[in-house]
Amino acid sequence: MNEKKVMDILQKVQSNTITLQEAYDLIKTNPYDDLGFAKIDNYRYITSNYPEVVFCQGKTTDQLVKIFKTLLKNNNSLLGTRIPKDVYDEIKSLIPELMYNETAQIIYKKNQTFKTSGNIAVITAGTADIPVAEEAAVSLEVMGAEVNRVYDVGVAGIHRLFDKLELINQSSVIIVVAGMEGALASVVGGLTPKPVIAVPTSIGYGANFNGLSALLSMLNSCANGVGVVNIDNGYGAAALAFSILRTISHG
Amino acid sequence: MNEKKVMDILQKVQSNTITLQEAYDLIKTNPYDDLGFAKIDNYRYITSNYPEVVFCQGKTTDQLVKIFKTLLKNNNSLLGTRIPKDVYDEIKSLIPELMYNETAQIIYKKNQTFKTSGNIAVITAGTADIPVAEEAAVSLEVMGAEVNRVYDVGVAGIHRLFDKLELINQSSVIIVVAGMEGALASVVGGLTPKPVIAVPTSIGYGANFNGLSALLSMLNSCANGVGVVNIDNGYGAAALAFSILRTISHG
Amino acid sequence: MNEKKVMDILQKVQSNTITLQEAYDLIKTNPYDDLGFAKIDNYRYITSNYPEVVFCQGKTTDQLVKIFKTLLKNNNSLLGTRIPKDVYDEIKSLIPELMYNETAQIIYKKNQTFKTSGNIAVITAGTADIPVAEEAAVSLEVMGAEVNRVYDVGVAGIHRLFDKLELINQSSVIIVVAGMEGALASVVGGLTPKPVIAVPTSIGYGANFNGLSALLSMLNSCANGVGVVNIDNGYGAAALAFSILRTISHG
Amino acid sequence: MNEKKVMDILQKVQSNTITLQEAYDLIKTNPYDDLGFAKIDNYRYITSNYPEVVFCQGKTTDQLVKIFKTLLKNNNSLLGTRIPKDVYDEIKSLIPELMYNETAQIIYKKNQTFKTSGNIAVITAGTADIPVAEEAAVSLEVMGAEVNRVYDVGVAGIHRLFDKLELINQSSVIIVVAGMEGALASVVGGLTPKPVIAVPTSIGYGANFNGLSALLSMLNSCANGVGVVNIDNGYGAAALAFSILRTISHG
Amino acid sequence: MNEKKVMDILQKVQSNTITLQEAYDLIKTNPYDDLGFAKIDNYRYITSNYPEVVFCQGKTTDQLVKIFKTLLKNNNSLLGTRIPKDVYDEIKSLIPELMYNETAQIIYKKNQTFKTSGNIAVITAGTADIPVAEEAAVSLEVMGAEVNRVYDVGVAGIHRLFDKLELINQSSVIIVVAGMEGALASVVGGLTPKPVIAVPTSIGYGANFNGLSALLSMLNSCANGVGVVNIDNGYGAAALAFSILRTISHG
Amino acid sequence: MNEKKVMDILQKVQSNTITLQEAYDLIKTNPYDDLGFAKIDNYRYITSNYPEVVFCQGKTTDQLVKIFKTLLKNNNSLLGTRIPKDVYDEIKSLIPELMYNETAQIIYKKNQTFKTSGNIAVITAGTADIPVAEEAAVSLEVMGAEVNRVYDVGVAGIHRLFDKLELINQSSVIIVVAGMEGALASVVGGLTPKPVIAVPTSIGYGANFNGLSALLSMLNSCANGVGVVNIDNGYGAAALAFSILRTISHG
Amino acid sequence: MNEKKVMDILQKVQSNTITLQEAYDLIKTNPYDDLGFAKIDNYRYITSNYPEVVFCQGKTTDQLVKIFKTLLKNNNSLLGTRIPKDVYDEIKSLIPELMYNETAQIIYKKNQTFKTSGNIAVITAGTADIPVAEEAAVSLEVMGAEVNRVYDVGVAGIHRLFDKLELINQSSVIIVVAGMEGALASVVGGLTPKPVIAVPTSIGYGANFNGLSALLSMLNSCANGVGVVNIDNGYGAAALAFSILRTISHG
Amino acid sequence: MNEKKVMDILQKVQSNTITLQEAYDLIKTNPYDDLGFAKIDNYRYITSNYPEVVFCQGKTTDQLVKIFKTLLKNNNSLLGTRIPKDVYDEIKSLIPELMYNETAQIIYKKNQTFKTSGNIAVITAGTADIPVAEEAAVSLEVMGAEVNRVYDVGVAGIHRLFDKLELINQSSVIIVVAGMEGALASVVGGLTPKPVIAVPTSIGYGANFNGLSALLSMLNSCANGVGVVNIDNGYGAAALAFSILRTISHG
Repeated sequence: MNEKKVMDILQKVQSNTITLQEAYDLIKTNPYDDLGFAKIDNYRYITSNYPEVVFCQGKTTDQLVKIFKTLLKNNNSLLGTRIPKDVYDEIKSLIPELMYNETAQIIYKKNQTFKTSGNIAVITAGTADIPVAEEAAVSLEVMGAEVNRVYDVGVAGIHRLFDKLELINQSSVIIVVAGMEGALASVVGGLTPKPVIAVPTSIGYGANFNGLSALLSMLNSCANGVGVVNIDNGYGAAALAFSILRTISHG
Repeated sequence: MNEKKVMDILQKVQSNTITLQEAYDLIKTNPYDDLGFAKIDNYRYITSNYPEVVFCQGKTTDQLVKIFKTLLKNNNSLLGTRIPKDVYDEIKSLIPELMYNETAQIIYKKNQTFKTSGNIAVITAGTADIPVAEEAAVSLEVMGAEVNRVYDVGVAGIHRLFDKLELINQSSVIIVVAGMEGALASVVGGLTPKPVIAVPTSIGYGANFNGLSALLSMLNSCANGVGVVNIDNGYGAAALAFSILRTISHG
Repeated sequence: MNEKKVMDILQKVQSNTITLQEAYDLIKTNPYDDLGFAKIDNYRYITSNYPEVVFCQGKTTDQLVKIFKTLLKNNNSLLGTRIPKDVYDEIKSLIPELMYNETAQIIYKKNQTFKTSGNIAVITAGTADIPVAEEAAVSLEVMGAEVNRVYDVGVAGIHRLFDKLELINQSSVIIVVAGMEGALASVVGGLTPKPVIAVPTSIGYGANFNGLSALLSMLNSCANGVGVVNIDNGYGAAALAFSILRTISHG
Repeated sequence: MNEKKVMDILQKVQSNTITLQEAYDLIKTNPYDDLGFAKIDNYRYITSNYPEVVFCQGKTTDQLVKIFKTLLKNNNSLLGTRIPKDVYDEIKSLIPELMYNETAQIIYKKNQTFKTSGNIAVITAGTADIPVAEEAAVSLEVMGAEVNRVYDVGVAGIHRLFDKLELINQSSVIIVVAGMEGALASVVGGLTPKPVIAVPTSIGYGANFNGLSALLSMLNSCANGVGVVNIDNGYGAAALAFSILRTISHG
Repeated sequence: MNEKKVMDILQKVQSNTITLQEAYDLIKTNPYDDLGFAKIDNYRYITSNYPEVVFCQGKTTDQLVKIFKTLLKNNNSLLGTRIPKDVYDEIKSLIPELMYNETAQIIYKKNQTFKTSGNIAVITAGTADIPVAEEAAVSLEVMGAEVNRVYDVGVAGIHRLFDKLELINQSSVIIVVAGMEGALASVVGGLTPKPVIAVPTSIGYGANFNGLSALLSMLNSCANGVGVVNIDNGYGAAALAFSILRTISHG
Repeated sequence: MNEKKVMDILQKVQSNTITLQEAYDLIKTNPYDDLGFAKIDNYRYITSNYPEVVFCQGKTTDQLVKIFKTLLKNNNSLLGTRIPKDVYDEIKSLIPELMYNETAQIIYKKNQTFKTSGNIAVITAGTADIPVAEEAAVSLEVMGAEVNRVYDVGVAGIHRLFDKLELINQSSVIIVVAGMEGALASVVGGLTPKPVIAVPTSIGYGANFNGLSALLSMLNSCANGVGVVNIDNGYGAAALAFSILRTISHG
Repeated sequence: MNEKKVMDILQKVQSNTITLQEAYDLIKTNPYDDLGFAKIDNYRYITSNYPEVVFCQGKTTDQLVKIFKTLLKNNNSLLGTRIPKDVYDEIKSLIPELMYNETAQIIYKKNQTFKTSGNIAVITAGTADIPVAEEAAVSLEVMGAEVNRVYDVGVAGIHRLFDKLELINQSSVIIVVAGMEGALASVVGGLTPKPVIAVPTSIGYGANFNGLSALLSMLNSCANGVGVVNIDNGYGAAALAFSILRTISHG
Repeated sequence: MNEKKVMDILQKVQSNTITLQEAYDLIKTNPYDDLGFAKIDNYRYITSNYPEVVFCQGKTTDQLVKIFKTLLKNNNSLLGTRIPKDVYDEIKSLIPELMYNETAQIIYKKNQTFKTSGNIAVITAGTADIPVAEEAAVSLEVMGAEVNRVYDVGVAGIHRLFDKLELINQSSVIIVVAGMEGALASVVGGLTPKPVIAVPTSIGYGANFNGLSALLSMLNSCANGVGVVNIDNGYGAAALAFSILRTISHG
């Protein structure tokens, strides 16, 4: 809903042409801006406490700039995933208020006021899984959640995990990021009563089949309380973890 | 840990041969009964508020009877999944206190005292998805959670879903059970800010490839806040939903 | 059939060496030009109301120029798909009458006179699906059909779709272009009695497996009246939609 | 919406408790009967000219009887697919008005008055593909369409197809049913300008992988105007073909 | 080589028709008995210290009886895998010296004299994996190796594994048998410097895809020193473990 | 073309209503009998020296009887594959001239007069591959070719193969039938300059994936001169081998 | 076997240190040159009438030069496949006698004297399949066979194929090269009694899965006498076709 | 455990603040250095006789340098796999003591003192498999084992293998590296009683599916005593082979 539409409605309120209720209904029935190539929700934050999120892969830089500008008119937080450094640089020159985390490949504007109770552990099996873990961790931080990072504690040296178990169990939700055989999700699931969100990564080679191995492992976990998101989908894990934190606060 | 072992320890306490602390440690260091073919946890309920759960598929009736008897010595609730009616009948004649739900294929003994706050919506796309949904719903009820069942509201007639949306949004967690193309998970995920646990079912034929279609759909959901469990894994969804409810209560 | 062959036949008619019927048969029995590496149909337009269509991927620029020149001798419309900008530039310098649409990656010459009755809605789930949608839309426009574009109305924010439903239902055929979980095809199929042509796209990542996820979703659609074409096959959807429009006119 | 509900509304109209408009709205807002395990649409026929269709696989006989009885209160035609002979026999003893086609595995009640213009060719590659073809053909006949059956004209003896080509081209839509390599769809697609709906079947063995071979062939067809439905989905092809016929009549 | 052939050769030695060397060569060049449908090695035991092994699946009972009788003429140990109880009963009535282990589905005659040094741990993740583990364990015992069985120590309750770790590390080779996500192989591999042979089982359902999940997990193990055999191939693991034991003794 | 049709044509010849040429054309344009569910070629033997071949799987016994009777009116040889013993027994009672080979699951009537030059080796890796090999061998014998059977010479005991190599190399074409890893095709291909037709079988389990393993092995053979047919397709190998033998005779 | 080895042997013959027979045996027992990274056969041409063939993909240029030089010492024909233009240029500067065909990506030295009887048709479905077809055709020509090229006759315009049918049927063996749905192999197989070698190509996109679609089509061909080689394996088809031609000449 | 932590502990020992036992426990409970992005084991060499191994793929050069420097503080041997030449060059400039093998893509520092008894044969089917074989061979040599290389002895020319058989059988363990159809593993497994470790490679194309073909072949090997590692996992084979050698020495 662009400015002109809103002003039209407000003028009708001022001139008593429509009632307050009618004005509210008009606004409610225009819940997105139509850019032609994209229809942008303006009200999602209010209903869901998310920043507006844009999956940037597959969109042109020109489209992204138009989408971000439109969103920033109505929102004070924003999160864009899968954005390479050079694309960010181009966007930054046009929308200076946007920040960037290169490991996570995330562009964002953070709303400083919102803060969840509880925190979330983000665990990786290896060092190479960190970019996916950072996509989750940075997303959560932009949303307003606190994150405990526990990296490189895979089952090949399981004593590294046990060392961190107390810290992990203090979190409300646990995100496990692992490639190769993805066994860490089952091991963590067996050691904690907390909800575990498993993120398979495409780290590996050969019969890993770009993450299929870890994905199937996690789906077949013999441990209780494990939910799985798409391969390399750090943001998806963050969104699910955040919806659990929010439910904890609001039931 | 069978009775004899416990009595030995307690006699030593009585006779002051060991201290209370030593007795506690002995008990703690024997956290399972070893039946040879199975090692049975006795303390899981205390640590995790689950009933003891047995995945019965692939075990002989003889093994199941021994496992159930051992568990019932130390627990007052128990949940066994994937158990056909004729196997239940045989077990029932030997362990009469066990109950059965045929649609869910679940054998159980319910602990009446435990009760979670909040409730869980269990939704199916079609009628044929109900057995998997009932595995989730009955598991949750045995664990002590309240369930809202909303069945046969798939996207081919989406007005049926909208009619139930208010009811669904009153739940703390939403379990979506769907086969064929599994689109219901994305649609529900787009309509609620609550955590959604998606259960793909093997309902369908042909290019469904025994549930692969719904599984991939759910993993690739464009909606936020969707976690996926294994195909037909109603119990797995229940366990994850329950761990979220428990976290809501205890942080 | 090149000019020389036709002239030979016509001279024989003129000199009464062959009858009109024989001449007709000769022409009919040479229904293509043989370039060695390609055999080019000259009569397809007459029998099917298509422009001549060339799938350009995998052909050298040199081959394409020869094919286009041959086609333009006998046809006044032409459609070439999957052609990158730099290849078009090279061809344009040799055959200036050819036009280009970069988003759709289509080279064409349009026959202004042909026009179908009815129109076709082309819908996308997301912004990244637009190139495939444009391959469909531009193909249809070159063929002579009218297109209604409705982009970025995926199920994660389903209210955007409902807003456009009336417009969609005014079309004779609906093309739904969607990647990731491809749920939009089922939702649209459930909301309209019109034929729906579903185009899975390779948009997504991980367990999307280059479009497999959307493809299986669409094949397993629980909605009635959904036919599926190959992943990213915008042109294929256009061709099927056009054959339906033509059948509407001619039975 | 069962009788009681409708009578309640009508009595309120009679007693002037509600206006006609309110009554209409009440009826409109109850567009399905809720049986708990199934939500049954009552108005689909009016909006879409389909008989009510039930996919029977995966439903219990008891559920089917309840669904059919509910449907027959509001509809004078009905179509149930994937129903074995013995299940039909049981249902028939309770709902005698239902008919059965064993080859097609279809239970139905036909509305004699509705009749489409145009007809549909149903073609098979082999004799073993006939059950799937009959699912399509009988479904179409119950819907009110006329069907031309052309069976066993696969490409191993392509002269059999050419013999029937004139008959095939007189149809408005062509359904091609083929297993093994599924080449017939491409060959037919290359010989006709009419819309072709391809149904891969699971007929074959080995590297057929239960129909995957024919499915991939049809999706990759080099011919124009071919849409594909799920493996063995005769009904799906009928539904799409019927929606095209209906569009021909009504635009 | 049947008796007649051997006697022919020996008679020629006796009658000085051939030299001893020639006789040896003749025997050496007939290293198998040709039954037409099977060619049976008679000398494998001497070269490899295996009992003769027959993979019985896919062979008729009649063929098996002929093969076993032929083998027993030249060998005093024999091992047949994948043999159901009823087939064994039939064979036993004809060849009474053969023994049977029903859990392992193995028919055998054991050579009491051969004994390897060292022993082999056979570990399972769950109770349902035991039949595959027994195929390995019984095969090893028939070959002459000592086995330590450690069953039901999967990662969902990893304390059960740690309890047995000392016992496991005393073995020369460790066979890990696991279905579902197969994580146990990696965990064991990370805890021991001994060679680990991983046997994926088909235990599980859904996205387990008949053992594919465990197979891929084990192939992608992040732990060192893990080799994998075919799904459910208990015998294969035994054969590899035995060849390692034998190499330990003989270099 | 049934008798009546032929008689009609001949009567017209007799009565000089049509010329001989016209009669010939009429016969030529009716090259098959149309049974509705099947279109039966009558002239294939003349053009290709095959017996008429029927793939019986998926056809009802009633359909088979009608097809066989029709074929036997015009042919003196016939071959039906994939026919179980009990179906044969039923057919035999109605068409006593048909013979059966149970291992090969083939029904046939053999034309004694036709005989190819050259012969064909049919080799199997194991005993369990014999049924597929017999489908090839018996098919070839019905067609009139001579077969050398060499069974159970797989690479696990490769000396068995070398023993038969001279015999194998005397054949004009070599059919290699192997399941599991299918390595025999490559080994034979490396040892002979003759054309090798590789038949993967579904013998095996686990990661064999119903023959996929042997199929991929054979397609990726590093040896020269290996062509592959479908999994378990013994007849297909026979047909290709026979077409090579026929080409040898006729160029 | 390099020159030095041969000379050593010959000198021993000259000096009567070894007999002629011993010399022959020495030569026979050194049938390859060992370059360390490659073991090169020197005698294959004599036994099989092939030129020495090198699959160049995956070998370094340095390795190729050493292999080619070694081969050219003992052979007067040579064939190297999968060699890019720039690699050829480098090799050509070192071994000037080698020729190149860029479309086929083949390096070769042709033996002018050998000539097979009979010829081979190489057919493609489309223009983009030509590089694979040329790999087959050029390989055959280097081997000494005559080739008839028939390109771009796919089933989308099947009249183009019928036009060439007489020419095709004059060949002894037919190679069909097709991507996408690969239907051409079945159509050709149904129209000819000659052996057909089907080469699936990776031409296509989406559900083509890099040639899987055409591969499965060809393996499931309903036509008789079709053998399949690996995706894009033009050389493999040539080698099989050549072995058939050779068998035709020599039995 | 960095220097500071160790010094803290030792100072406490010196000042008698903690006992020797406590100091030992502190050291034991810090068995790794925590770099944040990586947790580095310092004690693995002592328990397992491996050099510290780093899988470098997916790690940044900056991370690798930090990891290597940390490791070299506590170890005098190190092995890093999957490292390209340009990355090595950068690392070498910072850590000059590290060596490199380009074919194997391995960075290492070798401990000269450790030496295993026995040796290991590393065999390849083709020349293109050598890089994977060298990853195995160089890894073994860095670990302290002796390697016999036997390259390019694939089954297409099986006489090359037989020539080397005696050499191969003198090794304690045999590593077989093969792509394409991977048949060499079965052939070698059938010819030796030694443990065989099979490494499928991704060498090949088309239906090789990046090594799937060789992987499945090796998993389905009909030979005894074959264990499989991941596609292209030369290091994994080395680690397993080394653990067998070590077990030979220590039981």
